[in-house]
Amino acid sequence: MAQDKACLVVGAGDATGGAIARRFAREGYVACVTRRNADKLQPLVDAIVADGGRAHGFASDARKEHEVVELVEKIESTVGPIEVLVFNIGANVRTPVVDETAQRYFKIWEMACFGGFLNGREVAKRMVTRGRGTILFTGATASLRGGKGFAAFAGAKAALRALAQSMARELGPQGIHVAHVVIDGAIDTAFIRDNFPERYALKAQDGILQPDHIAGQYWMLHQQPRDAWTHELDLRPWMEAF
Amino acid sequence: MAQDKACLVVGAGDATGGAIARRFAREGYVACVTRRNADKLQPLVDAIVADGGRAHGFASDARKEHEVVELVEKIESTVGPIEVLVFNIGANVRTPVVDETAQRYFKIWEMACFGGFLNGREVAKRMVTRGRGTILFTGATASLRGGKGFAAFAGAKAALRALAQSMARELGPQGIHVAHVVIDGAIDTAFIRDNFPERYALKAQDGILQPDHIAGQYWMLHQQPRDAWTHELDLRPWMEAF
Amino acid sequence: MAQDKACLVVGAGDATGGAIARRFAREGYVACVTRRNADKLQPLVDAIVADGGRAHGFASDARKEHEVVELVEKIESTVGPIEVLVFNIGANVRTPVVDETAQRYFKIWEMACFGGFLNGREVAKRMVTRGRGTILFTGATASLRGGKGFAAFAGAKAALRALAQSMARELGPQGIHVAHVVIDGAIDTAFIRDNFPERYALKAQDGILQPDHIAGQYWMLHQQPRDAWTHELDLRPWMEAF
Amino acid sequence: MAQDKACLVVGAGDATGGAIARRFAREGYVACVTRRNADKLQPLVDAIVADGGRAHGFASDARKEHEVVELVEKIESTVGPIEVLVFNIGANVRTPVVDETAQRYFKIWEMACFGGFLNGREVAKRMVTRGRGTILFTGATASLRGGKGFAAFAGAKAALRALAQSMARELGPQGIHVAHVVIDGAIDTAFIRDNFPERYALKAQDGILQPDHIAGQYWMLHQQPRDAWTHELDLRPWMEAF
Repeated sequence: MAQDKACLVVGAGDATGGAIARRFAREGYVACVTRRNADKLQPLVDAIVADGGRAHGFASDARKEHEVVELVEKIESTVGPIEVLVFNIGANVRTPVVDETAQRYFKIWEMACFGGFLNGREVAKRMVTRGRGTILFTGATASLRGGKGFAAFAGAKAALRALAQSMARELGPQGIHVAHVVIDGAIDTAFIRDNFPERYALKAQDGILQPDHIAGQYWMLHQQPRDAWTHELDLRPWMEAF
Repeated sequence: MAQDKACLVVGAGDATGGAIARRFAREGYVACVTRRNADKLQPLVDAIVADGGRAHGFASDARKEHEVVELVEKIESTVGPIEVLVFNIGANVRTPVVDETAQRYFKIWEMACFGGFLNGREVAKRMVTRGRGTILFTGATASLRGGKGFAAFAGAKAALRALAQSMARELGPQGIHVAHVVIDGAIDTAFIRDNFPERYALKAQDGILQPDHIAGQYWMLHQQPRDAWTHELDLRPWMEAF
Repeated sequence: MAQDKACLVVGAGDATGGAIARRFAREGYVACVTRRNADKLQPLVDAIVADGGRAHGFASDARKEHEVVELVEKIESTVGPIEVLVFNIGANVRTPVVDETAQRYFKIWEMACFGGFLNGREVAKRMVTRGRGTILFTGATASLRGGKGFAAFAGAKAALRALAQSMARELGPQGIHVAHVVIDGAIDTAFIRDNFPERYALKAQDGILQPDHIAGQYWMLHQQPRDAWTHELDLRPWMEAF
Repeated sequence: MAQDKACLVVGAGDATGGAIARRFAREGYVACVTRRNADKLQPLVDAIVADGGRAHGFASDARKEHEVVELVEKIESTVGPIEVLVFNIGANVRTPVVDETAQRYFKIWEMACFGGFLNGREVAKRMVTRGRGTILFTGATASLRGGKGFAAFAGAKAALRALAQSMARELGPQGIHVAHVVIDGAIDTAFIRDNFPERYALKAQDGILQPDHIAGQYWMLHQQPRDAWTHELDLRPWMEAF
């Protein structure tokens, strides 16, 4: 039987997911990283290996039930028990509600929420039999508030947060730590650098979040002793208005 | 051009939707009531007409974009401007998250949230051209909190609430009143009577909500002058713990 | 024994408190209005009487326990049972937290929260013996959020909201309706007219709240049947950002 | 000029405050611990010194402005800059609101909130001149919700939370990290052991919070890089219902 401890990061395509995977690999976990197209994961896998860690890239569409079922089965049988699941898929798009299409509204929910349910449920089924495990969901400002132009994104994020709450209340007493991290600010990514240069310039003053620092908090949550678990915390740069 | 004022109640199959339709009909609106199967609406339409009001039943699947587009077009062209939309579809089912099926999780969201988006958007498109209108969403305890066993329902309801918030922030300054009503308690329905007889027995002490009283609050919200609009209110029986 | 139904409005010195008193007087209640200096209440009392209603002005410092005890005793013995209490004292002052004085921080809490406790408790003692009554607290944007510069005011308002919640949970099942109204916007008062003329100019477009409309909502809350009580609602102008 | 880094723990009389003081002392800070009677602090000071750390006990009534002003002045001039303030005074008492006395309602606010304002303001005045520092407030379940019987305690805690929010929004952009920790569960203290033996028995299964683990989270918050600060987190045992 496979015995290594696996950390599954769903949505490892961005800077945050990548940093989380690297951090857990550095701590001894086998980083199992996914995105729809596995080819794009190779640089991340290579970086983890070069850093002395272990990692596997998996092509998996987080929105397809059978793909998620297979993914979890494969990791559990070939790598080892999934001790940590990080669900990190976002889809932050701003559109006036009267212009929002049905297709996009659905797709944003499917990516940011439905995938969280599918991956969370499949992993939870295994974790409850072991009486341990950590499930971490990445939230955003929109998780707490339906702002102007964010009907679709806020809806998906609010639904993901409700999922995290229900899972925490059901699975906590079964030994599984479920937490939701509200990231309230821009992250140091290529997307912000290319599209919001003024915002990106705040990096010089620590005005945007560093993926490694976010990853540090995910690791911290996983390390919390079970008499003192956090279900929700927010992260934002010191100069961010809120 | 059609000139009557229409009140569209999506999800008029239950006691609450029916009571709201009757109330707006009594106040002079043409009640346009929908459910998937129009036949079942006939008793409600008949009751409104017997009461001296006007009503039309429409078969419309709230989850199908083209059906919603047609419905709104048809009412606007044959009845008159939709001055009020009430979205009242629920799907309160309790299941442990590890036992929840992908199909049911999706369906609950599709009914309780996606239908709200489709109907809300279509009606809003018309309302913004007129600079007036009222959109009312029915919420529940689960809109605010992901409880044990309610991952799917709470997710859908939280997403609907985020939709209501985004719509209020976008459409309020365009003259459209968007509100969300959190119903926190059992309602006097056949479902509660048949399935929760002990709860239903509280009716004798006013311990369950009367649909007519809920309807009165929806009418009150529609009547609020625009300098003092409510976006969210809760409704619960006096003896309900919260 | 005195038999008239009394409505006690604590903090009737401003436009909102005055409008609420007038409304309840018009509905048949004896308006018992208070402020520290009774002389200033005479115009309000005269206006209510001229309108065909009944009213009494009482000098009462809402922060002094013995004055509150005496006030409630006096109204109950000379006018009749207090069926409605409206606590409407605010103290919206903006100061950076490092510049806030201990005296002012204390005073804002004493006025906006401690007075609410003293009046609420004294009236509740009577209401519980009768198994009925309505207690309404006026809240503000700051009740929900500690904004920049509002440490003292938000603290007092958040504490008042917690009081309203505790009272609702304790007294609801004893037949007493406790509600909290979050007023999120400028009100049409002399204070706004004189100090924020640009804001006041929005009155022409219904951009500031009319005291009579606020009063209408307080009356509506008092009229709610006990199977469908609201604990909290917000009120804001259609064009207000939130 | 005094150059050591001080960590001021106000309310170090209980297990939590003591554990926090020990932790910061172990990390190199001079623990400055207070309670009204300094004698009772000697065992804590001795324990820190025995552990190789440095500590000073100060008699200081957190509710008296001049004592707080003197305390901060004394520490800054004789020990060094206060880099961290932990405000940890609680007063969890349960009383029906109609039985609550004015004196006790006031006292609970004075201890749990007013002391937080006085100490927070005095320390913040120094921190803003240095552009750095950490201020941590201890919250409770009642910080978020006014439960039955908790009118006084919830009011004080909600006010303290609003203070933390206002301070975070004002002082964050000045380089000062303000955070609020919601402790939602019983802590391993003599009080719980003696008064709630059944609850205390859960300790065997990690069902009550360990002060050292709480202290670890306070240290974690102080260590967060400024691009990723947490303003609020909750802590509860894995088996705690919420």
